[in-house]
Amino acid sequence: MEKNISSSLKLVARRDRSDSVVEVNGIEIGAKKIVVIAGPCSVESRSQILETARAVKKAGAQMLRGGAFKPRTSPYSFQGLEEEGLKLLAEAREETGLPIVTELMAPDSLDLVLSYADVLQIGTRNMYNYPLLRAVGGVNKPILLKRGFSATVDEWLNAAEYVLKSGNSQVMLCERGIRTFENLTRFTLDLSAVPAVKKLSHLPVLVDPSHGTGHRSLVPPMSKAAVAAGADGLLIEVHPQPEKALSDGPQSLNFDEFGDLVQGLRLVAEAVHRSL
Amino acid sequence: MEKNISSSLKLVARRDRSDSVVEVNGIEIGAKKIVVIAGPCSVESRSQILETARAVKKAGAQMLRGGAFKPRTSPYSFQGLEEEGLKLLAEAREETGLPIVTELMAPDSLDLVLSYADVLQIGTRNMYNYPLLRAVGGVNKPILLKRGFSATVDEWLNAAEYVLKSGNSQVMLCERGIRTFENLTRFTLDLSAVPAVKKLSHLPVLVDPSHGTGHRSLVPPMSKAAVAAGADGLLIEVHPQPEKALSDGPQSLNFDEFGDLVQGLRLVAEAVHRSL
Amino acid sequence: MEKNISSSLKLVARRDRSDSVVEVNGIEIGAKKIVVIAGPCSVESRSQILETARAVKKAGAQMLRGGAFKPRTSPYSFQGLEEEGLKLLAEAREETGLPIVTELMAPDSLDLVLSYADVLQIGTRNMYNYPLLRAVGGVNKPILLKRGFSATVDEWLNAAEYVLKSGNSQVMLCERGIRTFENLTRFTLDLSAVPAVKKLSHLPVLVDPSHGTGHRSLVPPMSKAAVAAGADGLLIEVHPQPEKALSDGPQSLNFDEFGDLVQGLRLVAEAVHRSL
Amino acid sequence: MEKNISSSLKLVARRDRSDSVVEVNGIEIGAKKIVVIAGPCSVESRSQILETARAVKKAGAQMLRGGAFKPRTSPYSFQGLEEEGLKLLAEAREETGLPIVTELMAPDSLDLVLSYADVLQIGTRNMYNYPLLRAVGGVNKPILLKRGFSATVDEWLNAAEYVLKSGNSQVMLCERGIRTFENLTRFTLDLSAVPAVKKLSHLPVLVDPSHGTGHRSLVPPMSKAAVAAGADGLLIEVHPQPEKALSDGPQSLNFDEFGDLVQGLRLVAEAVHRSL
Repeated sequence: MEKNISSSLKLVARRDRSDSVVEVNGIEIGAKKIVVIAGPCSVESRSQILETARAVKKAGAQMLRGGAFKPRTSPYSFQGLEEEGLKLLAEAREETGLPIVTELMAPDSLDLVLSYADVLQIGTRNMYNYPLLRAVGGVNKPILLKRGFSATVDEWLNAAEYVLKSGNSQVMLCERGIRTFENLTRFTLDLSAVPAVKKLSHLPVLVDPSHGTGHRSLVPPMSKAAVAAGADGLLIEVHPQPEKALSDGPQSLNFDEFGDLVQGLRLVAEAVHRSL
Repeated sequence: MEKNISSSLKLVARRDRSDSVVEVNGIEIGAKKIVVIAGPCSVESRSQILETARAVKKAGAQMLRGGAFKPRTSPYSFQGLEEEGLKLLAEAREETGLPIVTELMAPDSLDLVLSYADVLQIGTRNMYNYPLLRAVGGVNKPILLKRGFSATVDEWLNAAEYVLKSGNSQVMLCERGIRTFENLTRFTLDLSAVPAVKKLSHLPVLVDPSHGTGHRSLVPPMSKAAVAAGADGLLIEVHPQPEKALSDGPQSLNFDEFGDLVQGLRLVAEAVHRSL
Repeated sequence: MEKNISSSLKLVARRDRSDSVVEVNGIEIGAKKIVVIAGPCSVESRSQILETARAVKKAGAQMLRGGAFKPRTSPYSFQGLEEEGLKLLAEAREETGLPIVTELMAPDSLDLVLSYADVLQIGTRNMYNYPLLRAVGGVNKPILLKRGFSATVDEWLNAAEYVLKSGNSQVMLCERGIRTFENLTRFTLDLSAVPAVKKLSHLPVLVDPSHGTGHRSLVPPMSKAAVAAGADGLLIEVHPQPEKALSDGPQSLNFDEFGDLVQGLRLVAEAVHRSL
Repeated sequence: MEKNISSSLKLVARRDRSDSVVEVNGIEIGAKKIVVIAGPCSVESRSQILETARAVKKAGAQMLRGGAFKPRTSPYSFQGLEEEGLKLLAEAREETGLPIVTELMAPDSLDLVLSYADVLQIGTRNMYNYPLLRAVGGVNKPILLKRGFSATVDEWLNAAEYVLKSGNSQVMLCERGIRTFENLTRFTLDLSAVPAVKKLSHLPVLVDPSHGTGHRSLVPPMSKAAVAAGADGLLIEVHPQPEKALSDGPQSLNFDEFGDLVQGLRLVAEAVHRSL
């Protein structure tokens, strides 16, 4: 595989480095324990995010995800609550203690998002946004870098290299499905990328089976598969009432489904000598 | 997902049917126990296939795979030992008791292959070969139907429908990777297809992580992921000396690697309430 | 580009060979004049094929296409009139003098199809069907080899190599669209493959914009584009009443639309120093 | 095709609108005359850009392209001359009168680029960069919006909708190749998108055969094909010494090749009732 990867990669390449561990408020990502990050696609209201935060914490999630700035295909779709959404996330953290993962869409909202988030997410549509990658390379906060849905693993590792080269080595990668001819699933979750990237790089690798499949019923089996393949963590969409979600309802779990999933994941984690 | 699947599918569709179990010489595929089918890409010599059969049996495989007729991209590549290869497979079965899975490439060699094989494999390049599907629909022997590497799940289920409609309901499906833009791996193993097909159809589903990834080091993690995702079995390439194989060496495991893999798989199988 | 093509290709490779010209009943394909092959997807009835043959001849087509054996995704779809269809094609040739291009799906119908057809078409789903390629390599009749919709140019040239190696050098290649993530069109017509193949091989290259796009309105502009890109001919679906066609109606032209297209093509052909 | 396009599209949708014409310093794009925009991938030096500007003007180009800010896969590749490059482009315009097309990568360099450019290019990697699209929607200058190499036509039209909705209706679309499994060419130029978009939208559509193919020898045939398919213009990479270019040399034409191409294009343009 190494011959299909840029020889110019310096900072992200595995070479003889041991696994990097990224720390978020005391939680280690990339160590033995698998990290589950859960929450709604978009922050929609105070009650929605608070209820979800409580439920996912109770079920075993270690961090809360939720979008305040949403990159939507149509300009007429819900674009997120913006700063109001960030405040609600902070309130959820206040109550539950769960660190916040939220997306940054542009350099000019970096300071705003930084003042609320514990992890800055670079979304799939921005993986090639090099000015944004350089911007987050300049901050001292962990970055969750999603793979572009049309990006090769090599391009993805190069995107991470932009961040590390700009000074920030707290980078977690996240596979979230690639675009293929198959339209049964929303994207094709490329789980092979997990062991491949673990071999080629020292950075932690997470998996988002919600966007990767687009179907609620596929999230539990693919979450287990991700852990079996060696993922260091999962990003899972959870909503109090998925059928009423403003975005991504069909791929969101409700609280019970999420609780069941976490139980099932524990067994798989142990089977591959990890814990949850 | 159902809306992306042909409403005309009758015999393969799940509807309210329970899981189909295909039986091969007393081995059940599609039941609780996960089946491991192992062996070389091509039968190359008597010693190669006999040694491999003994080794994979000892490690825990329940069936032997091996190609006697090989569909190769170039007419100048090794095309298989043909009947000589089938005889060697039969000899390996004689000695080890492992049933034989081997590929059928054309209707006019059906009788020949039938007289040696326990399971007829329809390869990825022949999934759209409807005369061949009709031909194997007329025999009383289990069929392993690989997904075309550019086939949608819907086309794959329709291919199975050809076999069942022609009278043979002993069909096992096998995901083996689809062609995408990513060239780090030989194909992109579409593991989401496993739970999707289990939902849409009652047929057993196997996974071939060797062709699906093309890299030896990715076979163990993706085998575990396949089981975690709900696969009923695995097809794994094993060779006494992978670096000397006439075909697919880079994706073949040696005996030790295969033995280690089977050990690891047991734990994952149990974690998803299956056995090995 | 040469470095992405198998170095083992011998007979189809361009090297210093001049353009090959394939002759069908006195019509040259691969010479200055661009050849238009037109007709329905499937032969459906005597009146349908005879009317179409007359109309496309009058409009300027030099050969008649029509399927008697149809590879259909679903076993419940119309599968073609088989020998009855071949007889109707022969009757249309009798009356109009247009040579017949029709698909062969399996080696065991080779003699039957040979006794009616002037050109044997290998369809996109059979490009990897090596026994079939070897079979048509043994006959003295021109072969129209469609590109597999998931085949690389290299695999396509290797498929042609199977035919030439088996003794038949009368091969025409036909680009007909590849499978990509874009679902606006049925396939993505890869016109770049035309000049690429003309550079890499001496064989004539045709284009099928009907299957390549799947939309009637895109057939005229893409036919012109194909000629401008250097194609030696076109395969165009024409039906007396496209809205009533048993297969591929949405991509078929009616007689008037086909007549207009041929007029427009003449000008483009001349602009690239060809004729029609 | 309309059923595969968002029904929410308002401003870019064709409906019963006539073709939009975008004007750049008196040059009309989207009218009868086909526009050729040529120049190097990157501005590298004063002599390089001045020589190229003179040569492409003499050969018949109506605008000059050249990148000052370059989105490169690797952070270690040449990233462009930035403001120095913009100044050199302005000097080339001063001398030749050719308007300047150059890429904008981030909102915070909008004022800088605006002060030099005549057309702002949004590159393929930024098609999903909605903050950037909103930013250029707020200026009174023509926008050249490249299709994301993994974007569906629907997503591309929605990206244009972001610009129009933000107040700027001077948008030109540019097809530049999509990512597919085929690796013979750098991307797969999706020329069918040209007539499809002309039907679905009133905006002008250009084609970039240089990035779309990645091979110099394919640029002339695919340029002709683009015009035959109905493109309103072309974006072509030209360099004084392609073999010494700092980026994209293999797909750049030298001056003589570009001159020959323009001559050939004139004939094709006339064959489809356009002019050059």
